[in-house]
Amino acid sequence: MEDITTYLQKNSNQILEELFGLLRIPSISSLSEHKDDMYRAAEYYKNALLKAGMDKAEIFDTHGHPVVYAEKILSSGFPTVLVYAHYDVMPVDPIELWESSPFEPEIREGKIYARGADDDKGQGFMHVKAIEYLINSHQLECNVKFMIEGEEEIGSQHLEDFCRAHKDMLTADIILLSDTTMIAFDTPSITVGLRGLAYLEVEVTGPNRDLHSGLYGGIVQNPIHVLARLLASLHDDNGRITIPGFYDDVREMSEEEREELNRASFDEEAYKKSLEIERLWGESGFTPLERIGIRPSLDVCGIWGGYTGEGSKTILPSKASAKVSMRLVPNQDPEKIAHLFEKYLHKIAPDTVRLKVTALHSGYPYIAPTNIPAYKAARKAYLKTFGKYPIPTRSGGSIPIVNTFDKVLGIKSLLLGFGLESDAIHSPNENFFLKNFFKGIETISEFYLQFSHITKD
Amino acid sequence: MEDITTYLQKNSNQILEELFGLLRIPSISSLSEHKDDMYRAAEYYKNALLKAGMDKAEIFDTHGHPVVYAEKILSSGFPTVLVYAHYDVMPVDPIELWESSPFEPEIREGKIYARGADDDKGQGFMHVKAIEYLINSHQLECNVKFMIEGEEEIGSQHLEDFCRAHKDMLTADIILLSDTTMIAFDTPSITVGLRGLAYLEVEVTGPNRDLHSGLYGGIVQNPIHVLARLLASLHDDNGRITIPGFYDDVREMSEEEREELNRASFDEEAYKKSLEIERLWGESGFTPLERIGIRPSLDVCGIWGGYTGEGSKTILPSKASAKVSMRLVPNQDPEKIAHLFEKYLHKIAPDTVRLKVTALHSGYPYIAPTNIPAYKAARKAYLKTFGKYPIPTRSGGSIPIVNTFDKVLGIKSLLLGFGLESDAIHSPNENFFLKNFFKGIETISEFYLQFSHITKD
Repeated sequence: MEDITTYLQKNSNQILEELFGLLRIPSISSLSEHKDDMYRAAEYYKNALLKAGMDKAEIFDTHGHPVVYAEKILSSGFPTVLVYAHYDVMPVDPIELWESSPFEPEIREGKIYARGADDDKGQGFMHVKAIEYLINSHQLECNVKFMIEGEEEIGSQHLEDFCRAHKDMLTADIILLSDTTMIAFDTPSITVGLRGLAYLEVEVTGPNRDLHSGLYGGIVQNPIHVLARLLASLHDDNGRITIPGFYDDVREMSEEEREELNRASFDEEAYKKSLEIERLWGESGFTPLERIGIRPSLDVCGIWGGYTGEGSKTILPSKASAKVSMRLVPNQDPEKIAHLFEKYLHKIAPDTVRLKVTALHSGYPYIAPTNIPAYKAARKAYLKTFGKYPIPTRSGGSIPIVNTFDKVLGIKSLLLGFGLESDAIHSPNENFFLKNFFKGIETISEFYLQFSHITKD
Repeated sequence: MEDITTYLQKNSNQILEELFGLLRIPSISSLSEHKDDMYRAAEYYKNALLKAGMDKAEIFDTHGHPVVYAEKILSSGFPTVLVYAHYDVMPVDPIELWESSPFEPEIREGKIYARGADDDKGQGFMHVKAIEYLINSHQLECNVKFMIEGEEEIGSQHLEDFCRAHKDMLTADIILLSDTTMIAFDTPSITVGLRGLAYLEVEVTGPNRDLHSGLYGGIVQNPIHVLARLLASLHDDNGRITIPGFYDDVREMSEEEREELNRASFDEEAYKKSLEIERLWGESGFTPLERIGIRPSLDVCGIWGGYTGEGSKTILPSKASAKVSMRLVPNQDPEKIAHLFEKYLHKIAPDTVRLKVTALHSGYPYIAPTNIPAYKAARKAYLKTFGKYPIPTRSGGSIPIVNTFDKVLGIKSLLLGFGLESDAIHSPNENFFLKNFFKGIETISEFYLQFSHITKD
């Protein structure tokens, strides 16, 4: 059989057509009207894994969306890799900003455009295709398992129970996943730190109905005003989060660690230009890379209340709401942070309104080890396929389940991301470079060869 | 012919069926998809006026929604009354809070439920029916004109031009309108003061697209945070508006005037209970009636930005917007206030975002004279139909066109409102008591008798 580069060149149309079939399924986990699409996406992965040569593939029902599990067990003497991916995607709004339909994948200027093109159907499918090549070319000397869930974008609510229930089935030496980015195509990197997450919804209720803003304005407290004040009270003028106790458990990094982190390149001018902003913002006393990598952050992800249609409507609304995401770093506890947030808002909210705070989802921050065989194998694989060693980076994002794997299964994770920040994941026009997709397949394939080699030593 | 009370009792079903026909037309002026409904509502009024016995009725096109004009000229020796009303209504959202369909009028517990039941189809139609009775019973000794527009809820944008263009046609001694409330059914009142209005939209733009809140949170300024800060900066802790210069032109009232104003009844406990709020709010140093009647106010009528759907989506949004209404008192100038608002926001907004402020509509405050024949005639009419004199009140609402009438046509307005504050105008489940509707017809009819009598003296 030909080498992987030739193999991928020959079969690229066929491989992309298979990926596109998956991208066409609108498997949005947060919207209940897509429930059937979740099963369709799971079924699609199951069939792709069987076609790739896995011994068996199965769909497990959960209390939420189903989990696909597959395995190929070659020898008890081989190391075992458990691949994790997710087949669910984010919602697509604002839909009017998409240049092509989010569930009708299109290739433009060397990129695949579709919701999930990168996160995580494109990146997840690289693993299927890498394994297919290794099995067909009889080079696989690892046992391989796949666990593909459908609730990553809504906090992996039922995967912990699944892991507990199938702990023996999921035994592995390392968990491999591609759900992160690399610095640039010519600067490969491995994510060794992830932020945690606490996501809450805040609802402020004033009068029991929308009121006429003339007849009531000036004597009835407006819930939008209160919500604005609450949200404005979450940061001080230095960009620091004001919730009492919020920073108590943040592990301060040493000067050496900070220097190491700042060694990654960050072109501030290009960054601002690509986002069309005049100036960056954030906690004073830290560099942009530090603010993303080792400092927590708080963002209002959505706000709504009153009349939001065309033209003018003069009301004093009954309710106003907001969704808030907090990104956490070691050693912050998301449950504790959610509690501090709720307590602080209740403390500062006036008694002219009623306040309701609801926790929607959460996850712990994670630090990956770099002194284990899998990490070393990955370094060698990147050297072979990219011609240089990968840079260890800390991502501002969160993959809460990685922490759960460590806690429940006792298995560490290796985060090999091949996406770029410009891929617009979670945004309109999500995309994934074709060259990143194929280089990802090559690198993952090479990882298995290096991993079996290293563990033999 | 029988007296009006008997007449209304006999014909109540027929009269209500005619009103319901008007209420069934969804003539929402702010939504362009209802353009045809505006014409249907104008046509409906035209036919109702012809049926009532007006000499002629006509629809005039404008650059916006059309104006219905009708007249009955009996004698140059008679005083002339110009009735103003509007056939347009507010939007209906949140639609899910309506107990019956907003454009399918229903009578429940003595009230008509429909969008426009009070504001202003119900109140406007009282005038048609009062004139119909007077003409049929040969008691009318006034010349009567009707001018019914379709843009009151969006700032009467084209009525000023209409008035200028048809100044001679619109000549009258008094303008009569019912687009306000009375204190209670057993406490009739006439509105002698209206607040002005400045309505603006604020848009804050951060990055050029929605971003992943993990990968960007902490280094890119979130436009919702900025908007929250801007809105939170519009009031101080004493409920005073903080825009520099905002109060400069507010005419302070004398102690006597304040005492007079506070003589109207205001049951704070019942008020709070009906709105299900713990505590009132507002500018310190003023009573609730003063805060509504003689002090300006500022309310955010709507806010939106980012993800507002079900569940969680972790984004840092590109934009956030809000609609703001400011209610003004003599001698505040809405153009000047809009300018001060915009200037202040630009001054306090950070340069990490772009700010756009758009003025949507505006109107001057108004004080009605109480020493003119029409006001005296109205007092006598209320005494006859309600058994007591009406109390002069100041409304927190705005009918900007009343000022335009004064300025362009040189005619004062008389505001005879028969709605109640509990009618939920601009809100879900708008309603109008049947007894108010019929008592309104009686009082308006009696007004014409008294007015012709007084002007004869």
